[in-house]
Amino acid sequence: MKSVKVGILGLGTVGAGTAEVLSRNASEISRRSGYDIAVSMASVRDKSKPRGCDCSDFALTEDPLDIVNSTEVDIVVELIGGCDLAKELVLKAIANGKHVVTANKALIALHGNEIFSAAEKHGVVVAYEAAVAGGISIIKSIREGFSGNQIEAVAGIINGTGNFILTEMRDKGRTFDDVLAEAQELGYAEADPTFDVEGIDAAHKLTILAAIAFGTPLQFDDVYTEGISKLDLVDVAYAQELGYRIKHLGIAKKTETGLELRVHPTLVPEKRLLANVDGVMNAVLVKGDAVGNTLHYGAGAGAEPTASAVVADIVDVARTLDVASQQRVPALAFQANAVQELATKKQADFETAFYLRFQVKDIAGAMSQLSAGFAEQNISIEGITQKEPEKGQSTVSVIFITQKVQEGMVDEAIKQLESLAVVDGEAVKIRVEHLN
Amino acid sequence: MKSVKVGILGLGTVGAGTAEVLSRNASEISRRSGYDIAVSMASVRDKSKPRGCDCSDFALTEDPLDIVNSTEVDIVVELIGGCDLAKELVLKAIANGKHVVTANKALIALHGNEIFSAAEKHGVVVAYEAAVAGGISIIKSIREGFSGNQIEAVAGIINGTGNFILTEMRDKGRTFDDVLAEAQELGYAEADPTFDVEGIDAAHKLTILAAIAFGTPLQFDDVYTEGISKLDLVDVAYAQELGYRIKHLGIAKKTETGLELRVHPTLVPEKRLLANVDGVMNAVLVKGDAVGNTLHYGAGAGAEPTASAVVADIVDVARTLDVASQQRVPALAFQANAVQELATKKQADFETAFYLRFQVKDIAGAMSQLSAGFAEQNISIEGITQKEPEKGQSTVSVIFITQKVQEGMVDEAIKQLESLAVVDGEAVKIRVEHLN
Repeated sequence: MKSVKVGILGLGTVGAGTAEVLSRNASEISRRSGYDIAVSMASVRDKSKPRGCDCSDFALTEDPLDIVNSTEVDIVVELIGGCDLAKELVLKAIANGKHVVTANKALIALHGNEIFSAAEKHGVVVAYEAAVAGGISIIKSIREGFSGNQIEAVAGIINGTGNFILTEMRDKGRTFDDVLAEAQELGYAEADPTFDVEGIDAAHKLTILAAIAFGTPLQFDDVYTEGISKLDLVDVAYAQELGYRIKHLGIAKKTETGLELRVHPTLVPEKRLLANVDGVMNAVLVKGDAVGNTLHYGAGAGAEPTASAVVADIVDVARTLDVASQQRVPALAFQANAVQELATKKQADFETAFYLRFQVKDIAGAMSQLSAGFAEQNISIEGITQKEPEKGQSTVSVIFITQKVQEGMVDEAIKQLESLAVVDGEAVKIRVEHLN
Repeated sequence: MKSVKVGILGLGTVGAGTAEVLSRNASEISRRSGYDIAVSMASVRDKSKPRGCDCSDFALTEDPLDIVNSTEVDIVVELIGGCDLAKELVLKAIANGKHVVTANKALIALHGNEIFSAAEKHGVVVAYEAAVAGGISIIKSIREGFSGNQIEAVAGIINGTGNFILTEMRDKGRTFDDVLAEAQELGYAEADPTFDVEGIDAAHKLTILAAIAFGTPLQFDDVYTEGISKLDLVDVAYAQELGYRIKHLGIAKKTETGLELRVHPTLVPEKRLLANVDGVMNAVLVKGDAVGNTLHYGAGAGAEPTASAVVADIVDVARTLDVASQQRVPALAFQANAVQELATKKQADFETAFYLRFQVKDIAGAMSQLSAGFAEQNISIEGITQKEPEKGQSTVSVIFITQKVQEGMVDEAIKQLESLAVVDGEAVKIRVEHLN
């Protein structure tokens, strides 16, 4: 049997998981692939430190360039994360004619266009299934499984940390800060949680999903990104009373007036499967013109689920080792010369429904003024709910669920309504997606 | 751009859908694949009949052999269904060196071993994504997306008709016969519904899923198959009261003592996503040792969802047109010489939990005798519920949920308990799967 030698850059959680899965499932993997696939080298920061996997069958080096330049490596697996060193190593590996597998979403979202172009020039593959939603195999499903479709929308829970926090807030009535502290203790959240809770990690992944769904270049800068750190517990509870769950979604929609690329907390009807994806799990809904709605669910992170995707990529790459490049699945799903820029919409042009909460001082006077304000802006209201004041509060919560409307019109209405004397402070605005 | 010519055998619902999707999405498909893919010929039973698609761009023939033998066809798409003619045509196409795409689950489940062996001999691909769960892309996920895993179990709602009937029974309290009649009117069920409601269609699909998950030959005859036609409305309601939903599942499990291949009504905890897949939708849960539990959800039938899978297969095949066969994804996921027979278990050896309903005449005397009977057989009981007699009934329903146990032991216990004087008639036995 022909052998394939894998060099791993970075033996952290996912690197050790990848080495472990390749070794433990070696027989299953070669029964499937027809190749004897094994790690030949791995780079670590400090060789003297203990490892999370058995390293006795391969060489360790402290210089990642040893791997990128080695003749004993067919496929370079980049698992060190971050953008600077990772980018340098990946480009060097490509220049050396090596295929690359990476789990690095930031690298692909920010530098993918350059990397894929280099890969095409050198006739190598850069595979990145593990960059989005761990082991779910969503990249493969979109790039290959739905190749007969015009994809209309992708909407996903693509950050496990954020979903864990939202699930705990809802189930146990705990505040954001309280759950975040626990998530950090459990290792679900980083010491600096910004990437997860402010939606940047989700925006990286959405950037990738949008490109392969619509055949556009990667355009991270065009993603509207809003995190969950400002989410008030009271809105989580009100949403539930109204038959919704709040989920942090990455949404990419193709509309006649351009692409909507947005990451934000979203009310989802509780009947939808996506609304019932809890804890650290991920799920991605894909809507194609032929296939309709599909949902793909699984672990979005963790050593072995991520390793599962890395190994699947290694097997895919192994299958193309002797194949001329034109037959391969293109990096961004569409042939490089068929990738097309598509205009992205600004926030004011997004079209969706809204959950709007106002605190009002005088309920009798407020209702008619608020309703009149929405009518003036031609914003149709789906439902209005009024909540009894919390103990010690002098204001009453009034919640409007709008019909689908342009966000700019809603912002304009909010501005006007906030200036009313009966309205106290700023309105809370959360988007609503029905996903049907 | 290189062109790929597709010949369709059978222009029924799925055939017309395939022609429509290939034509409507032609630009998207060639942007992805790099090939200009179009239908060149299609066979129909009667050329004079009106069609569900525009046929002006391709030739129609009443002799399917014209397509199989044509030099104007690169890929033969078999959508006539059934086994006799379909098998003959597929084998002839293979012998003629043509690649084949089929949506025919019965053909693959019953004759796949022979067909794939012929395909390997002639160096062609036989692709069959559309044979299981329509457009969900589950074959691709298992064959390629989870290639790094030892797959431990597959469990799926893989018959939309059956799921529609069960959903209506639960939601509206309607009987099986009542809903079946409506399903037939709506076109969800055939005039002869045996394949759907007796589980044969699901068993065909499970046969395929099990082979590609575990690397075994297709073994339809070893699937234990039980339909939903005997399901009593009262058990659907009781299951729900106990926190479960009854779903018709195809289950394939790898255990240390052999494979369990079974299709039957199953109680699933209502919290599981799979329990919330309603109507005609399909969903498949795959459990891998590295990836954990994943779920894949979407439309399992219908013209365009099925066409979505057929077209994805056509694109995949197009990508291999100039590629030596050894690099291709093997037909049954594992290299032909690595496919291994694995012993399948008999029904008496299945291990699962059970919902058991007894009708008893004298509740005081019955409880202790029934409990004693289970204890005698070393069957642990998870919970016991007693239901008030329905109006006009003299017996009381007593429901036991057992812990996981060998089915043979449960059957033995049931036989003994049915012979008790306090027990009226036969017990109802439905399997319970926790899917965690």
